[in-house]
This record gives sequence, structure tokens and C-alpha cells, in this order.
Amino acid sequence: MIIDCHGHYTTAPGELQKFRDAQIAGLKDPAQTPSRESLTISDDQIRDSLEKAQLKLQRERGTDLTIFSPRASAMAHHIGSELTSLEWSRVCNDLIERVCGLYPDNFVGVCQLPQSPGVPPANSAVELERCVRDLGFIGCNLNPDPSGGHWTSPPLTDRHWYPLYEKMVELDVPAMVHVSSSCNPNFHATGAHYLNADTTAFMQFLTSDLFKDFPTLRFIIPHGGGAVPFHWGRYRGLAQDLKRPPLEEMMKNNVFFDTCVYHQPGIDLLLKVVPLDNVLFGSEMVGAVRGIDPRSGHYYDDTKRYIEGSSLSADDKRKIFEGNARRVFPRLKST
Amino acid sequence: MIIDCHGHYTTAPGELQKFRDAQIAGLKDPAQTPSRESLTISDDQIRDSLEKAQLKLQRERGTDLTIFSPRASAMAHHIGSELTSLEWSRVCNDLIERVCGLYPDNFVGVCQLPQSPGVPPANSAVELERCVRDLGFIGCNLNPDPSGGHWTSPPLTDRHWYPLYEKMVELDVPAMVHVSSSCNPNFHATGAHYLNADTTAFMQFLTSDLFKDFPTLRFIIPHGGGAVPFHWGRYRGLAQDLKRPPLEEMMKNNVFFDTCVYHQPGIDLLLKVVPLDNVLFGSEMVGAVRGIDPRSGHYYDDTKRYIEGSSLSADDKRKIFEGNARRVFPRLKST
Repeated sequence: MIIDCHGHYTTAPGELQKFRDAQIAGLKDPAQTPSRESLTISDDQIRDSLEKAQLKLQRERGTDLTIFSPRASAMAHHIGSELTSLEWSRVCNDLIERVCGLYPDNFVGVCQLPQSPGVPPANSAVELERCVRDLGFIGCNLNPDPSGGHWTSPPLTDRHWYPLYEKMVELDVPAMVHVSSSCNPNFHATGAHYLNADTTAFMQFLTSDLFKDFPTLRFIIPHGGGAVPFHWGRYRGLAQDLKRPPLEEMMKNNVFFDTCVYHQPGIDLLLKVVPLDNVLFGSEMVGAVRGIDPRSGHYYDDTKRYIEGSSLSADDKRKIFEGNARRVFPRLKST
Repeated sequence: MIIDCHGHYTTAPGELQKFRDAQIAGLKDPAQTPSRESLTISDDQIRDSLEKAQLKLQRERGTDLTIFSPRASAMAHHIGSELTSLEWSRVCNDLIERVCGLYPDNFVGVCQLPQSPGVPPANSAVELERCVRDLGFIGCNLNPDPSGGHWTSPPLTDRHWYPLYEKMVELDVPAMVHVSSSCNPNFHATGAHYLNADTTAFMQFLTSDLFKDFPTLRFIIPHGGGAVPFHWGRYRGLAQDLKRPPLEEMMKNNVFFDTCVYHQPGIDLLLKVVPLDNVLFGSEMVGAVRGIDPRSGHYYDDTKRYIEGSSLSADDKRKIFEGNARRVFPRLKST
């Protein structure tokens, strides 16, 4: 079985964006604020949005199950207030539940959290609990920078985040560390902000004792861990200079990278340096890079090919395709 | 000949830091502000600071010339005012000139710019010109984020920076894109902020026509280009989706990466994916990572070994060790 740990509902029916546009318009003119009930999307619309996109690609590429969450770039926690974010998160999460209900063999849900700049992460625990207990979700996406490129929150290792971590531990769900769109013109979202956040989070974990406080807390750092595998020697050396534990020990049960790295040499490096128990198959299709690589004739984000094209043993490939995901997402039922 | 394009004076005599401490104390209590003349460092102190550090390592590793600039993490453009930054830059640059005067075969200067948050980059042109014309320097370090981790300046591709670029072009000197220390607790300087800045700058270049406006403007993105080579497929795909030129074409005469990547698999990836005409040998010794890798028995930052250990031809190695640096730094005299 092949589990893709990183998929977003990037192809949701246009009604969803219309709702969001009205919600944003409502920030200036409250009369335009839509009610959640005003958003109507039919099952057929949902089917149509997936059949020609994620489901088609699952079939073509031969993957089975996608761990599926709302579109990351659209979370935009920096827009509006905490209430804006809560409404938007509930709408997006409810839609993911409908996807999973229509295609229970193909998708399992991960939620967007109703984060908002300056608002305690504890306030996201209610929506996390609703999604896990009521909607059957198995994890969440945690934005380390709800300000959208201004980085005004404390580091992920600060006690600021602990109340949310307590809920994650109680529910036994991991978080993918995933920023959203950037409102800082310095940072292109998918070309800079995403990877910077991955790199930043790793270094925060490296320099803290967070996992002594939360031995079962688990994070997936997406996009192959940002810059980290390429600079594995730098990080090994920094850990050594700073008298921190070796990277392998720090990551062991707590920090995982996905395989959203869109070329063979990158995947080869990832699999060479990072412990294979800490790598989860992911593609983020249909996502940041949608084209076909003219050199290979295949989609850049068809990461399954790169893993298959690597020199790993069949057992190691199975870990990455399935086994590791089952350890990180214990709420994923055996199917 | 082996030219190391990336070295900072990290081992300067303690008097320099005492001057800086007094300067910072003077921001609160002007009576403590030191005069530039009050800083006295003898030639012997300079020799001593280098003989047991950079010069020793040059000899041990078999490199010849280091393109040498003030300590990057100490630039700290976010501290104090424009005047603070100007004073500090002049002191640091003058000290680099003395180093180069004492060891003209071993060091050639690159300057720190007197940037300051919110201050037009044009104001740095005077110090750049002084360093190049009067002190014989061959380039500068340009901080894309003088705010130190808050990223409040416009992107490097904004016209905001053009007056400084005009001076760079006039003087025919390149800039290394190099941030300094971070006052944002999210970003560890050498473990996150540096690499994030590298990644960010590359994506800014990818999405702009800057080099149409300045065909001879040249930037070195240090630390192997941040996350870029590891995500080369992602960037190729983004360029394609965004209808931008191929990466090789964008970089051609304008964007270069150094080899400050501290393990063999990272260097192998860099040399495999990035055009070899766009890679300059660099080690950043004595810098971010000072330890010895117990797996190899050699310094992590002894990057010459990794290049020698790669599968490149002798001609290609010569490009990286010398030829490319001479193209990027035309003011580097043939010796």
C-alpha cells in the first residue's frame, strides 16, 4: 500500500473561493459576510473536482491513500481576526470530511487550524479535537508563522505552543509544520516561504529540549525538510558545536521529513543522509509545481518514481511508502 | 591556484569587539561612544589572529587566496542608526585592508556595507566606492534584510536597490548576498536565517527581470545556494509554470553559488545539478561550523576535500577553484 502523507484540496470547487472572497469582503463591509450555510457544494461537484485531478493521478501513479488537508496556501491565517480564521477553517475542514466520506479508501483527513496572529495556539485545540473526534481526522497542519511572512510568533519550541501540543499528545495526532501564503513581498510562497519555514522549524527543534517535555509529540517537516538534507553536514556540525544530541537522536520518534523533492538527485540525497525511519512518502500533488519535466517526460511532483528509481531495498521502500506513515499517524486504521 | 571566495575575519583581535560593545553602549549613553581613533590593534595582533587560524588552515588545506570580508554575523545592521552602521563598517573594512596589506598573497578584501533598516541602499555607495577605489577591495557583502530577521526591506529585485547596483556595475564588483545576525527569535543565524536568505534571494531573482536592467550585475549566493540545489526540480518546475527562463539561463552571467556545503553528498548534488560555470569554491572558514567531523576525521568546512572527492574532471575542478572566481571578480589581479 502506498500512502501519500502530503496532499491538499487545491482543486476544490470554485464556490469555496467565492465564499472566501465574500468573507474577506465582509472584513470591510460586514453586510457581505457569508454564513457557513450559504456555501453549497454538491457531492457531484466534489467528485468532479477530484476525479480529474487527485484521483486520476492516484490511479495513474499507482498510489492508494492520500492524507488530505485543506489547501495550505489558502489558510492565510493572517487575514482578518480569530473569528475569520475559525469560520474559514471549519468550512475547509468540513469539506475535507465530505471528500473522505465520498472516497474513504482514497483520502483521510488532516485539518487546518484556526490560528491567528497573536492568538494563543490553545484556542486551536477545540477545532483540532472536533476534527479528530467528530470528523475522523488523523492529524493537523500547524503554521509556525500565522502572520504570513513576518514571523511574529514565538518559535515552535516556546511554551506558547504547549497547550496545543498537549491536545495533540492527548489525541495522538502529529502536525505537519506548514506555513501558508506570504504577505511579505520578500517571500514567494512556494519558492521561498515554504522551504524557509521547514529549515527554520528544524533548527528550532535542534536547539531545544521540546521532545523531553513531549516525548510522543510528532512533527512532519514537509518539502523534504527544506534545506536540511542538502546541508546535513552543516547541521551535524552545528549540533556538535552546540553540544546538542546527534540529528538522528533528536529526530528519532519526533521529527519526520516527507519526500516532496521534485527531482531524482534531490531524493537520492534525502534517502542517503536522513534516517530512513524518518522519511514519509509525500508528493503534494496537485500542488506547488504542476508541470511535466521535459527531461523525464513525467510530472515533477511524481515523487513515487524517484523513490522507485533510488537504490533502496524493497523493505526500505515499503517503510517510506507505508510503514513510517502508520507509525506517525496511529489513528490511520489498517485497511 | 585555489581561491576561496568566502572568508570572514571571525578571529579579529578582541579590541574590535570591545570597540563594538562601547559603540552599542553609546547608543544609550552617548558618553561611552568610542572614536574610531581609540581603536588600536597592532600589526602583531593581526598576524597572531590569522597565523593560528585562517593562515594555518590555508596552509594545511592547500588553498592560496581568501576573498576576505568582515565577520558577517557581526555586521548587525539592525543595531543603532545609519551612523552607527557607517562607523562600524568603516572600522571593520579598514581592518580588512590592514589584513590584506600584511598578507597580500593570502587575502583580498570584500567590504561590509553601512546598511541600516529603512535607509536607501544608495547611501552605501560611498563606502563601497571608498573600499574599491581607495582600499583595493574587489566586492561587497549585501544584506537583503538589514532589519535582522524581520525582512522589512523590499526584495532585492525592487528599484529601491538600483542606485547601489549602478555603483556596483560602474565599479565592476559583485556582491555576496549575506545576511547578518538575527534579532528574530525564530531564526537561528547560521542554522536558519543564512540559508533562508539564500533561498529567498534566488527566488526573487527567478521571478524578476533584474538582469535585463543590469546585464553585468553579479551576485554570489553563499552556502551553496541555500535550499536551491536540493530543490532544483522544484525551481525548474516553478520557472516553467511561471513562464520564466530556465534556471541556467537566468543564472548564466549573474548568479553564482559558493561551495559552503559541509558534506560530500551535498557537494556532489550541487555539482551535479548546478551549471559548473556558476559555482565558486568557498569554505567560510573559520565560520559557522568549526568542529571536526568524527566520521571523516576532517573539518566539516574543509570543502576543498569534497570537491576533490567529487567525480569532476580536472578542468572542471579548476573552474571552481579559480577560473569562475576570476570571471566574477574581475578586479582580482592575476597573480
